[in-house]
Amino acid sequence: MKNYINLSDIEDLKALIHDARGMKSNPSEEKPGKGKTLGMLFFNPSLRTRLSTEKAARLLGMEVMVMNADKDGWALEFEDAAIMNSDKAEHIKEAAAVLSQYCDIIAVRAFPGLKDREQDETELVMNSFKKYATIPVVNLESATGHPLQALTDGITIQELSEKSRPKVVLTWAPHPNALPHSVANSFTEMMQQIDVDFVITNPEGYDLDPKIVRDIRVEHDQKKAFKDADFVYVKNWSSYEKYGQVLEVEENWTVDQAKLKNTNNAKVMHCLPVRRNVVIADDILDSDNSIVIQQANNRTYAAQAVLKKLLECSK
Amino acid sequence: MKNYINLSDIEDLKALIHDARGMKSNPSEEKPGKGKTLGMLFFNPSLRTRLSTEKAARLLGMEVMVMNADKDGWALEFEDAAIMNSDKAEHIKEAAAVLSQYCDIIAVRAFPGLKDREQDETELVMNSFKKYATIPVVNLESATGHPLQALTDGITIQELSEKSRPKVVLTWAPHPNALPHSVANSFTEMMQQIDVDFVITNPEGYDLDPKIVRDIRVEHDQKKAFKDADFVYVKNWSSYEKYGQVLEVEENWTVDQAKLKNTNNAKVMHCLPVRRNVVIADDILDSDNSIVIQQANNRTYAAQAVLKKLLECSK
Amino acid sequence: MKNYINLSDIEDLKALIHDARGMKSNPSEEKPGKGKTLGMLFFNPSLRTRLSTEKAARLLGMEVMVMNADKDGWALEFEDAAIMNSDKAEHIKEAAAVLSQYCDIIAVRAFPGLKDREQDETELVMNSFKKYATIPVVNLESATGHPLQALTDGITIQELSEKSRPKVVLTWAPHPNALPHSVANSFTEMMQQIDVDFVITNPEGYDLDPKIVRDIRVEHDQKKAFKDADFVYVKNWSSYEKYGQVLEVEENWTVDQAKLKNTNNAKVMHCLPVRRNVVIADDILDSDNSIVIQQANNRTYAAQAVLKKLLECSK
Repeated sequence: MKNYINLSDIEDLKALIHDARGMKSNPSEEKPGKGKTLGMLFFNPSLRTRLSTEKAARLLGMEVMVMNADKDGWALEFEDAAIMNSDKAEHIKEAAAVLSQYCDIIAVRAFPGLKDREQDETELVMNSFKKYATIPVVNLESATGHPLQALTDGITIQELSEKSRPKVVLTWAPHPNALPHSVANSFTEMMQQIDVDFVITNPEGYDLDPKIVRDIRVEHDQKKAFKDADFVYVKNWSSYEKYGQVLEVEENWTVDQAKLKNTNNAKVMHCLPVRRNVVIADDILDSDNSIVIQQANNRTYAAQAVLKKLLECSK
Repeated sequence: MKNYINLSDIEDLKALIHDARGMKSNPSEEKPGKGKTLGMLFFNPSLRTRLSTEKAARLLGMEVMVMNADKDGWALEFEDAAIMNSDKAEHIKEAAAVLSQYCDIIAVRAFPGLKDREQDETELVMNSFKKYATIPVVNLESATGHPLQALTDGITIQELSEKSRPKVVLTWAPHPNALPHSVANSFTEMMQQIDVDFVITNPEGYDLDPKIVRDIRVEHDQKKAFKDADFVYVKNWSSYEKYGQVLEVEENWTVDQAKLKNTNNAKVMHCLPVRRNVVIADDILDSDNSIVIQQANNRTYAAQAVLKKLLECSK
Repeated sequence: MKNYINLSDIEDLKALIHDARGMKSNPSEEKPGKGKTLGMLFFNPSLRTRLSTEKAARLLGMEVMVMNADKDGWALEFEDAAIMNSDKAEHIKEAAAVLSQYCDIIAVRAFPGLKDREQDETELVMNSFKKYATIPVVNLESATGHPLQALTDGITIQELSEKSRPKVVLTWAPHPNALPHSVANSFTEMMQQIDVDFVITNPEGYDLDPKIVRDIRVEHDQKKAFKDADFVYVKNWSSYEKYGQVLEVEENWTVDQAKLKNTNNAKVMHCLPVRRNVVIADDILDSDNSIVIQQANNRTYAAQAVLKKLLECSK
């Protein structure tokens, strides 16, 4: 593994999940990251990702340097051959090369604009770091993917599943704002790589990118989709077809206990932060059906397994 | 000790002050916080509290993760059963539970709004963290109290007093803005727990919360109050009766050398930051009567004693 | 060495450069900074300086506490005898004395206003820290100097020069904004202390402070200046004569490959961030003539040598 930008960067998913679960159950005193530095660069806010990745790095013995890119540093230019005579002070070519001098791994968060689908799908920020950095790059959520979250989700389902092949449903839920597709995309990719019966349910107009969904069953009737589910993963996203828009939805898609009746006493997941009583009702979040806190806890071990692997591979 | 939210959380004040003074005079090489993480969450600015608490944690061998809550993360919802469809992205229930996964102790600063007395007195932020976190919570100054400052002040008076029962005066002083009562409240509570002759002096209309002042002597004539004082603690606060208001005061309450004439060459204290020549005059701050820097230094040892105690109690 | 505020604080430049190069080529496992704390205070944004100095401190085993002065803390008052009844909450006298309690070395960045030359030349912020701190102070770029950058530049030229006395040209280049003179000033001072044939070239109206330039050759014809150069250091600065102004310049001063023809295949330096195709053209920055990344890398070792020296001297 040279970088962790997409799920496809994982060479052996089974082994990586095994490593992460081992780090959780048997914390090691070994410090393979001793004398190594993780640089974390945020173009957007973060709580879980920031703290869990910092925690993971320190558990490995690494030093961590955190930068809020736009607030602490300079605005970056990403266009090739740009004549930089306006507001951008530094080109990604220099920024990435310089960070590569000071750090051993660099982790970057950069959300999409949600205005221009083609532009977002170029993953300009993440791919520019990949291109110009000379050290491994970790995706802390980019325009179209959130692979550390997806690895966490794979770990959590394997850890808490009581079946060898559980039924997992990814359901869209309402939200006042237009949100990225990154979590839903990466979760969908992950579910195609582990042994689950996977269904996506969302209102008409909210189908995810067909290049990612491929032959996964998509059900526009939430009730049908929930039938016998072992895990319900709740997440909002904006429309992909009418890119970045929030479409009107007539039925109530908020997930509550009444809707779980139809399931196999499903465990409910969410990447957090979650808007209570809009995305998921209190009666789930305050019940034993919710596993969102255990899921958040696994962020640390997902990040730790990835960082450890990158340290080994860059030796 | 399970948390350090109020002075009343201290079980044995004498022992805690003794510990803190020992950490100052005999720094130990022991690292009881090794492998443990302190999370610091700021809803308001901080210099001394931030740096001294971070320093204290590192002296104990802890890792420290600092978050500026509103700037680096998400706006938090504190109301129970809220339908979160506007600007708040995360509920305290999740935020506190998740931070409890990544940290071993969490420290929080959250000032009052100073608009609604009853609302401020519920201590919603601090008490919500206490309620929903599963790890110890430390108050880095809340709506109505600043117990780390008060512990520092207790240490400082014991350290520098030349008498077994010194006279200590807490005096109000002018300030252009409406300030919280937290420092004055906690100092008043501390003075009721150590062996001092304690007097509060402030203009009419500025009496502190009677539930905190109890039977302490309150003197509206600053000169009378200062008579033979060994320590003068200077601090502004807004009106408690006309809650959060800055009332007009005719006399000059700024503390200067002329006013110390009447004292026993009093040592002058302030929690800092101090507005020179408004709260305290240069002729004191630049003289040997000022002990504000030694006092600020003791912030480290107060925090270190509290963190060490919490680490021991949560084993 | 008691502080590192100006290049003149260095007692033995040759030895210091030797130390820095040794730290780069032979990283030591020794941690002379163990148990010591570096406080970094930023009044302005920073990427390289922030990360390289933090990295340097950690290589020495120091703890690092970073503050964005105006955002995380309080606005500071620097005027003596000020009556602090408006927007400044804390006086530098207290801030510096308090930071001296929590840290062992303090590093400060404070840019000039570029409105009032005399005011900027007083170096109020840096000199106030020097005056009121009781621990060593490091300049992370002040109103008129950037001595850590200049030390880096001295190291880089010695490291990469193929001659015992290379020709070094400092050239002005265009920039949309009014920039400080600090980098050019400190570089000019450094070049007067190492064995180089040094020339400064800039348009009329852009001559640097004559107190710094002294008897160095200043050439207003860039082409003439570049003749046979071994190193070309490119940097914009605003006018010193018409203080802080951006004057119109008719000729093209952007440095590109065509202009290097005239040189001895010169190595091109810049302190970064650099605006591509305004200050330096892509055809240089993407070629082997550019040594800006190696130069940025040396920031770490310059800082490490300075911090180590200050730790030794403050024992």
